[in-house]
Amino acid sequence: MIFITRRETFNAAHRLFRPEWDDEKNLQVFGKCSNPNWHGHNYVLYVTVKGDVDPKTGFLINLKDLSKILNENVVEKLDHKNMNLEVDFMENRMSSTENLAIGIWEQIEKPIRDLGAVLHCVKVYETEKNYVEYFG
Amino acid sequence: MIFITRRETFNAAHRLFRPEWDDEKNLQVFGKCSNPNWHGHNYVLYVTVKGDVDPKTGFLINLKDLSKILNENVVEKLDHKNMNLEVDFMENRMSSTENLAIGIWEQIEKPIRDLGAVLHCVKVYETEKNYVEYFG
Amino acid sequence: MIFITRRETFNAAHRLFRPEWDDEKNLQVFGKCSNPNWHGHNYVLYVTVKGDVDPKTGFLINLKDLSKILNENVVEKLDHKNMNLEVDFMENRMSSTENLAIGIWEQIEKPIRDLGAVLHCVKVYETEKNYVEYFG
Amino acid sequence: MIFITRRETFNAAHRLFRPEWDDEKNLQVFGKCSNPNWHGHNYVLYVTVKGDVDPKTGFLINLKDLSKILNENVVEKLDHKNMNLEVDFMENRMSSTENLAIGIWEQIEKPIRDLGAVLHCVKVYETEKNYVEYFG
Amino acid sequence: MIFITRRETFNAAHRLFRPEWDDEKNLQVFGKCSNPNWHGHNYVLYVTVKGDVDPKTGFLINLKDLSKILNENVVEKLDHKNMNLEVDFMENRMSSTENLAIGIWEQIEKPIRDLGAVLHCVKVYETEKNYVEYFG
Amino acid sequence: MIFITRRETFNAAHRLFRPEWDDEKNLQVFGKCSNPNWHGHNYVLYVTVKGDVDPKTGFLINLKDLSKILNENVVEKLDHKNMNLEVDFMENRMSSTENLAIGIWEQIEKPIRDLGAVLHCVKVYETEKNYVEYFG
Repeated sequence: MIFITRRETFNAAHRLFRPEWDDEKNLQVFGKCSNPNWHGHNYVLYVTVKGDVDPKTGFLINLKDLSKILNENVVEKLDHKNMNLEVDFMENRMSSTENLAIGIWEQIEKPIRDLGAVLHCVKVYETEKNYVEYFG
Repeated sequence: MIFITRRETFNAAHRLFRPEWDDEKNLQVFGKCSNPNWHGHNYVLYVTVKGDVDPKTGFLINLKDLSKILNENVVEKLDHKNMNLEVDFMENRMSSTENLAIGIWEQIEKPIRDLGAVLHCVKVYETEKNYVEYFG
Repeated sequence: MIFITRRETFNAAHRLFRPEWDDEKNLQVFGKCSNPNWHGHNYVLYVTVKGDVDPKTGFLINLKDLSKILNENVVEKLDHKNMNLEVDFMENRMSSTENLAIGIWEQIEKPIRDLGAVLHCVKVYETEKNYVEYFG
Repeated sequence: MIFITRRETFNAAHRLFRPEWDDEKNLQVFGKCSNPNWHGHNYVLYVTVKGDVDPKTGFLINLKDLSKILNENVVEKLDHKNMNLEVDFMENRMSSTENLAIGIWEQIEKPIRDLGAVLHCVKVYETEKNYVEYFG
Repeated sequence: MIFITRRETFNAAHRLFRPEWDDEKNLQVFGKCSNPNWHGHNYVLYVTVKGDVDPKTGFLINLKDLSKILNENVVEKLDHKNMNLEVDFMENRMSSTENLAIGIWEQIEKPIRDLGAVLHCVKVYETEKNYVEYFG
Repeated sequence: MIFITRRETFNAAHRLFRPEWDDEKNLQVFGKCSNPNWHGHNYVLYVTVKGDVDPKTGFLINLKDLSKILNENVVEKLDHKNMNLEVDFMENRMSSTENLAIGIWEQIEKPIRDLGAVLHCVKVYETEKNYVEYFG
């Protein structure tokens, strides 16, 4: 078994807040991330898949196919978008990096399985100082 | 003469569009950056100042003082903010990286001069693939 | 279960040597790291914690709280310090990156548990060419 | 148990193709990587070993010894070489990053064991956008 | 006047040698770079252009247009290619990073001028340890 | 005219303080950098030289020769050393990054001229957040 990882990038606006909490409570829990006028990030995504090497190609998976899955299911839906308002798989979820990683996993797990590989890890950097990893 | 550079980071939401243009024209010129629901970036700022070395301290400028100027005049105004709606020095300006660099220059030129140094360059990365430099 | 990682930095002086060995033996084993006049590094620390996502906040842990733990228990004790002479949790230990990672683990394991999360990994870069990971 | 990782770099030319396939099939599967005139990369290698800390030295392994193993068995054989034509351990193997990671593992597993440590992971970056990990 | 920089990447095989010199002389001058079986690099290109900001768009130049020029005139000609054998603008030139930077300048100076901007600098990284800058 | 840059790294201990000032004054000016027990950094050095391309080699300068100059005159004198106590060209100078850049310039200007090139810039990173540039 071997692991291969692909890096993609996208940027998006978002806001962390709970409508049933007042502004003070939102500010206390989410700090500057609760700004009602939004803020945003350059997200960096690393997707790791695992499986066996095909002796004919030397590939676990063709990276062109993996990149196509990531672009169609993740990057095109998130890039230059508002994560709270425009991303179907983030509806009814706080737009934290944790939930974003879980949402991305759910989007790509089946397409990667259909390619004959197994999704191992979704890793998302929100800033250069923090990232989340989800293993399903 | 010597040059010293300080790196700071902030993130913000923004949108590129002209209200007098229709959506089609905005989309044609600004592409995904015209999204009405905003998007955002992790901006990276490098500020370079120049001057002579003080033989007593070995410093051109005390970096604590430079960092304080950058935080009070730039980072606190931009970090986790909407650049189009909430940043005084970006009012009535397209929120392009070019204008952001010029705006930052105007904010910090005098405070740096008051410290006894000369502002040399404001460099702003919008993404890892593009940055702007302004020399006044 | 999900994993979140925070990056912090500090710099410190240190020296690798054993007092019961002579200089030649110290030099042979530790090379330039045994220099009696010290040397130093910009250390980079990555701390990974694991746990469940709180559906209210979308957070595994509030990063402000994690950062506070890391600053109070690690960064303030090490930053701009001499690791051999001034850091309580490194007393009676060779100041290798391996021991530093173990020492940091011991400092932060309980405070992170008190926050409701589980410490997963302490990763320390001594230089850009080598790092240590400790999982408890 | 603790883990330590060493980073090394090398660059090499290679080509992905199968002689029994015609050019069209090679192009379809391997894309630009099948160019008959070769292309090349700056590879980045991370080797992770695991074991216990020697209380005398504070080391899991002396990094000078690990670096020597990596240079003699990997870097000198690959650096500024043609991976398809000149690297003994890549003979009769597609020169994919997957096979390169496996080949490197086979070269260094025993020398690292002879040093008293256990090889844990070979990680190879082909470009900044993709890397492979092999755990044996 | 303002400066904007775009980053692009490509990889290529090459070799440094002079046919009128024997192998020994080539090896003495060019070291491992003279390997007759080629080697290769992941090149990183930074192109800086200068000009005035258009008050309508806030842009010096539309980065989509600059990126298109770089891809058509540089990346497509070099990426996954052999620089000595397949790149028209490197014919009859040693494939050093110096000559590559000059060659790239000659390819893009006019298209950038046609866009209304002025080419300021071509910067090429051959490895993470060395880069060349050419200002025309 | 063309410019080529070489990157080298070294680490060292140092301290910023003036013996004629008391501890309080040193702390006020130099902050944590005045710690009497030293601290240290992983310094990163970029040296840029300029000149004409030799049509025979395609080189401005042979990077092996430049690297040799940097290692003999800078890296070997500073690496794993105490900058205040053990580095001849830093004697009687505050060990600030500004003075370090000037000191390195003085060490390498003549050897580079003897090679037929002209030293253009010495750039020194003390941490990832600040660097100094000196142009003579």
